[in-house]
Amino acid sequence: MYELGVVYRNITRADRAATDGLAALGSATVHEAMGRVGLMKPYMRPIYPGAQVSGTAVTVLLQPGDNWMMHVAAEQIQPGDIVVAAITAECTDGYFGDLLATSFQARGARALIIDGGVRDVKELQRMSFPVWSKAISSKGTIKATLGSVNIPVVCAGMIVQPGDAIVADDDGVVCVPAARVQQTLYAAQKRESFEGEKRAKLASGILGLDMYKMREPLAAAGLKYID
Amino acid sequence: MYELGVVYRNITRADRAATDGLAALGSATVHEAMGRVGLMKPYMRPIYPGAQVSGTAVTVLLQPGDNWMMHVAAEQIQPGDIVVAAITAECTDGYFGDLLATSFQARGARALIIDGGVRDVKELQRMSFPVWSKAISSKGTIKATLGSVNIPVVCAGMIVQPGDAIVADDDGVVCVPAARVQQTLYAAQKRESFEGEKRAKLASGILGLDMYKMREPLAAAGLKYID
Amino acid sequence: MYELGVVYRNITRADRAATDGLAALGSATVHEAMGRVGLMKPYMRPIYPGAQVSGTAVTVLLQPGDNWMMHVAAEQIQPGDIVVAAITAECTDGYFGDLLATSFQARGARALIIDGGVRDVKELQRMSFPVWSKAISSKGTIKATLGSVNIPVVCAGMIVQPGDAIVADDDGVVCVPAARVQQTLYAAQKRESFEGEKRAKLASGILGLDMYKMREPLAAAGLKYID
Amino acid sequence: MYELGVVYRNITRADRAATDGLAALGSATVHEAMGRVGLMKPYMRPIYPGAQVSGTAVTVLLQPGDNWMMHVAAEQIQPGDIVVAAITAECTDGYFGDLLATSFQARGARALIIDGGVRDVKELQRMSFPVWSKAISSKGTIKATLGSVNIPVVCAGMIVQPGDAIVADDDGVVCVPAARVQQTLYAAQKRESFEGEKRAKLASGILGLDMYKMREPLAAAGLKYID
Amino acid sequence: MYELGVVYRNITRADRAATDGLAALGSATVHEAMGRVGLMKPYMRPIYPGAQVSGTAVTVLLQPGDNWMMHVAAEQIQPGDIVVAAITAECTDGYFGDLLATSFQARGARALIIDGGVRDVKELQRMSFPVWSKAISSKGTIKATLGSVNIPVVCAGMIVQPGDAIVADDDGVVCVPAARVQQTLYAAQKRESFEGEKRAKLASGILGLDMYKMREPLAAAGLKYID
Amino acid sequence: MYELGVVYRNITRADRAATDGLAALGSATVHEAMGRVGLMKPYMRPIYPGAQVSGTAVTVLLQPGDNWMMHVAAEQIQPGDIVVAAITAECTDGYFGDLLATSFQARGARALIIDGGVRDVKELQRMSFPVWSKAISSKGTIKATLGSVNIPVVCAGMIVQPGDAIVADDDGVVCVPAARVQQTLYAAQKRESFEGEKRAKLASGILGLDMYKMREPLAAAGLKYID
Repeated sequence: MYELGVVYRNITRADRAATDGLAALGSATVHEAMGRVGLMKPYMRPIYPGAQVSGTAVTVLLQPGDNWMMHVAAEQIQPGDIVVAAITAECTDGYFGDLLATSFQARGARALIIDGGVRDVKELQRMSFPVWSKAISSKGTIKATLGSVNIPVVCAGMIVQPGDAIVADDDGVVCVPAARVQQTLYAAQKRESFEGEKRAKLASGILGLDMYKMREPLAAAGLKYID
Repeated sequence: MYELGVVYRNITRADRAATDGLAALGSATVHEAMGRVGLMKPYMRPIYPGAQVSGTAVTVLLQPGDNWMMHVAAEQIQPGDIVVAAITAECTDGYFGDLLATSFQARGARALIIDGGVRDVKELQRMSFPVWSKAISSKGTIKATLGSVNIPVVCAGMIVQPGDAIVADDDGVVCVPAARVQQTLYAAQKRESFEGEKRAKLASGILGLDMYKMREPLAAAGLKYID
Repeated sequence: MYELGVVYRNITRADRAATDGLAALGSATVHEAMGRVGLMKPYMRPIYPGAQVSGTAVTVLLQPGDNWMMHVAAEQIQPGDIVVAAITAECTDGYFGDLLATSFQARGARALIIDGGVRDVKELQRMSFPVWSKAISSKGTIKATLGSVNIPVVCAGMIVQPGDAIVADDDGVVCVPAARVQQTLYAAQKRESFEGEKRAKLASGILGLDMYKMREPLAAAGLKYID
Repeated sequence: MYELGVVYRNITRADRAATDGLAALGSATVHEAMGRVGLMKPYMRPIYPGAQVSGTAVTVLLQPGDNWMMHVAAEQIQPGDIVVAAITAECTDGYFGDLLATSFQARGARALIIDGGVRDVKELQRMSFPVWSKAISSKGTIKATLGSVNIPVVCAGMIVQPGDAIVADDDGVVCVPAARVQQTLYAAQKRESFEGEKRAKLASGILGLDMYKMREPLAAAGLKYID
Repeated sequence: MYELGVVYRNITRADRAATDGLAALGSATVHEAMGRVGLMKPYMRPIYPGAQVSGTAVTVLLQPGDNWMMHVAAEQIQPGDIVVAAITAECTDGYFGDLLATSFQARGARALIIDGGVRDVKELQRMSFPVWSKAISSKGTIKATLGSVNIPVVCAGMIVQPGDAIVADDDGVVCVPAARVQQTLYAAQKRESFEGEKRAKLASGILGLDMYKMREPLAAAGLKYID
Repeated sequence: MYELGVVYRNITRADRAATDGLAALGSATVHEAMGRVGLMKPYMRPIYPGAQVSGTAVTVLLQPGDNWMMHVAAEQIQPGDIVVAAITAECTDGYFGDLLATSFQARGARALIIDGGVRDVKELQRMSFPVWSKAISSKGTIKATLGSVNIPVVCAGMIVQPGDAIVADDDGVVCVPAARVQQTLYAAQKRESFEGEKRAKLASGILGLDMYKMREPLAAAGLKYID
């Protein structure tokens, strides 16, 4: 349940270095390192392929068809932030375009995550300002009703607290609570460190069945081979 | 409610120069200039990114799984037209491929907008013949039942009259009634002319809050800042 | 209805040369050559554009959120195979990523077709390992419950028998029963052989109405032209 | 493309007696009698089973999340009307509840058809005021932005002109253009008049294959029986 | 992949007594007794609540928007059959209404399961002829293209062989292969026989935690209670 | 982001009398009284019509296809509670049937709200145990992976804290934070108290245009009447 009409100016951002370190690991590895939680629903897609970012969340709650609070949110952005926008009802309107992106980028924002629509996507790609969204739509919005900035929001099924770390790439968007960023970075790096060796083994033709020693548990579970 | 089995040969096309001028402005700006109406539903997506076109509508009403009328429509195409195809029931079949595109292109068509499916998309991209559609599907169609050509149709939720101007890009598809093309072009150009200055201000770090003088109305609406 | 916990090691693969010949023809032509059957539902989309493959099906039945059987399937892959994965319930989790792709590729697999989700899509594109899937998702899976390998499965609405030929490109995914691969290849090549001539005629401005002699049947069906 | 901010007070309603006669025939028969056109998309469902109505359309165009124009529409209702509500964007909010229904019913309206949401459905059933809608939702709406009343609208994919006849029952919602109501009633009654005899034959065990003389055309189409 | 244009007249139906015995157990218990397989997708819903049936499958493959084969199927119905209809593409048209239901009922059919639409639902309820479908729609169909009768079909994601047993109720639709009907009935009855005692215990306030002895495995899995 | 494997035994429930008072007001009025927030997404539907309840939330987080934590939740139920179940991924399996309902009812639970599937719906209606769910499905679940009980969850897009008040009826499901139950009850009752008088006026034919004094603001907004 949301508090409307408020802007929290002082939020505690996740550790900068640890947050920045998450981008290279990617959303899938970070999600695994968290114990398979924190992922937004898979309908959230990047507007162009290839972007891979991490940053600290400035949250904004929008009203359907109304992007007024986007301008309020812009003032709260600090370099390294990612804006996470939720809407009080399902809506695919284009809340965000190249002008707002220019403003967000000037303030130091790295990306927008929005549970709604976005437009000017060709220009956004040209500007290298990535957006993960539910829809792409030319439909414009009005500026009439208050939402809030920097309150906890639900974006694409996931609770995001202001200041949490966000990791987004072509696979999806993950939210890491600020208090767990360090340990998540560590766990994700550890996972990653084993991957090179595994990849080399698998590339040489060794089967996961043997590498992960799965043959015994599969047999115990009752798997039968039929010739 | 549709009239079936008719082809209107004489349609009044929107002013050519004004229609052609809309492409550069893009669907979002044109939609705003129209007072935020005219946009097709956002499930209409381009089969490849980057195309941006405008043209005059030749409309075609198709039956489910039947593309017979596409061939009838081909004959009605004049250079600068965009074919707008509606279907009498929801269907994702691939009504259109590279052969029809070759014919449409030879007649001077600039694009296809279809509330159904399309195929041969790799070849269509190679030919630079853009399509905005609801689906991509290999599924072929038959040629057995009559629809109509150049009657008013509902395509992706929007009424399109034959001769209306169509603007389509990565953000979506907008229909501009023929009688309003000139004024829409003018209004859209006016919007556009202010954008460069705004973009420069926002890029310099000036906030929309100040540039649009939003602080007072926000306070009047009750917005509270909490430190 | 599915048999669980079994792996069939000896399957009869479709003729290699005929199967390999299908790739160049593409899914739309092959689907037409089959009499317009065999196509998976159009929600199956490639994770990157441009791939066009054919191969023999190794099928795998997975449990929701569980990719254990993918490792079992890997051992059954022979060069030229395409893995076709069905799931016992609707699920968009990311069952497959770059490590499994490395293993599949090392075994000679050409692609994965999965009625579920996939991740590491940027890396999969870098590896040139194409996947057609229902979703892209970072969400990881567990290894706890048995499915089966090389049983008949329903993938995206289509029955796939192990050993059937699969053709996949930007237009979709088609399954050709092993026993019909030769005749389908022949029929598809025949279709294709007529296309060049047709394309040339249409490009020269000849209408399909005349080339396909449609004017008479259209008139017989009652089509009326109104000036 | 919609005209905003206008109310047309004088509309030409379809013939009252003919319109009223359509209810007993039902949406399926009327849709057939029209040549299989005029049907709204099947996501339009009644809020309770069993209602079967016909009436003349008063149309209203609403803005997303805003039901202001519903009150404007109420004044235009005459006894025997059915209000048909379209929305300028996809929205499932609850635009209509028991208070508006009380007002509509007092004005003589027989039903509401809305391409959006509705609430107070238990009370609406108690009042015997049927609604066909896309959604049921408690979500309230505001009264801030103008739409229009009695302009042509697109509701659930179908063009509805003010004054057209509407037929709705458990099978769906059909729109009959005012000019075609008499002939449609006649054609539908004719269809209906044959049904009793057909039903009796089928109930006695006579097959449609024989009653409709389908065996020959099926054989001609190539149907093969295998014992 | 489907064989088109054929009708298999001699099919092996599942054991009558065992098939009939499944109805009382319901789809959920039968699905469990099968090892949690055999269930159609949950979008299949009954057109009215309360029906609970079992019977042997007569399968029919339909073309989009074409119900010709329904009449062919009618002739193949024997008392105790349930018709299972698949369509070669996604379609929500109303393939079946009260006339066909009269014919099916006269032949002894108990129900229709259709991966498409149905109409005359009020009359079907009055006739006590239950249907499980993907949609309800007034949209009529034509009789122009051949499908098949009594071939294996995929209906709502599930393979159904002619003669298989079908169980359907308010919870969904399950397919039991003919060869497994006896053992499934036995297993389902065994499950059912334990339910009364369990229900009595749970009703008396005993927790599933204790009745199923879950406390130890939950603790072993690491569950922590916090006061 | 969710904490897994924990059960909070001591939660602060919303005031009992105030919570109980909300049921009679219904979800639409309560949602309005909260300032139009707190509503779950409209895909949440009752399994049978007519139930109208309020109660205090016991929350449970489930894993996909796994209902183990339902049994853990049962022990935490106190009379007057409503169980609110979220799932870590999208899933329509039938997590809940008549045995669990017997146990929940024995513990004093009034309803279940679940962002997933449910089964045995006919029996649940017979027991008068209402459920609001995303789906109905026979598909059974396993008991293998830990979730949590009485942590904050996101259910159908809404954050629910353990102890919050829940109001559910045919219009949808609303969550009222425990701290706001008293004031919400008061505000809702106040709204309700004006409704009788309004209803009487509207029933007498007085228009909302006049009763709410809308004519002037409509004219100010530019509404034009055309005769």
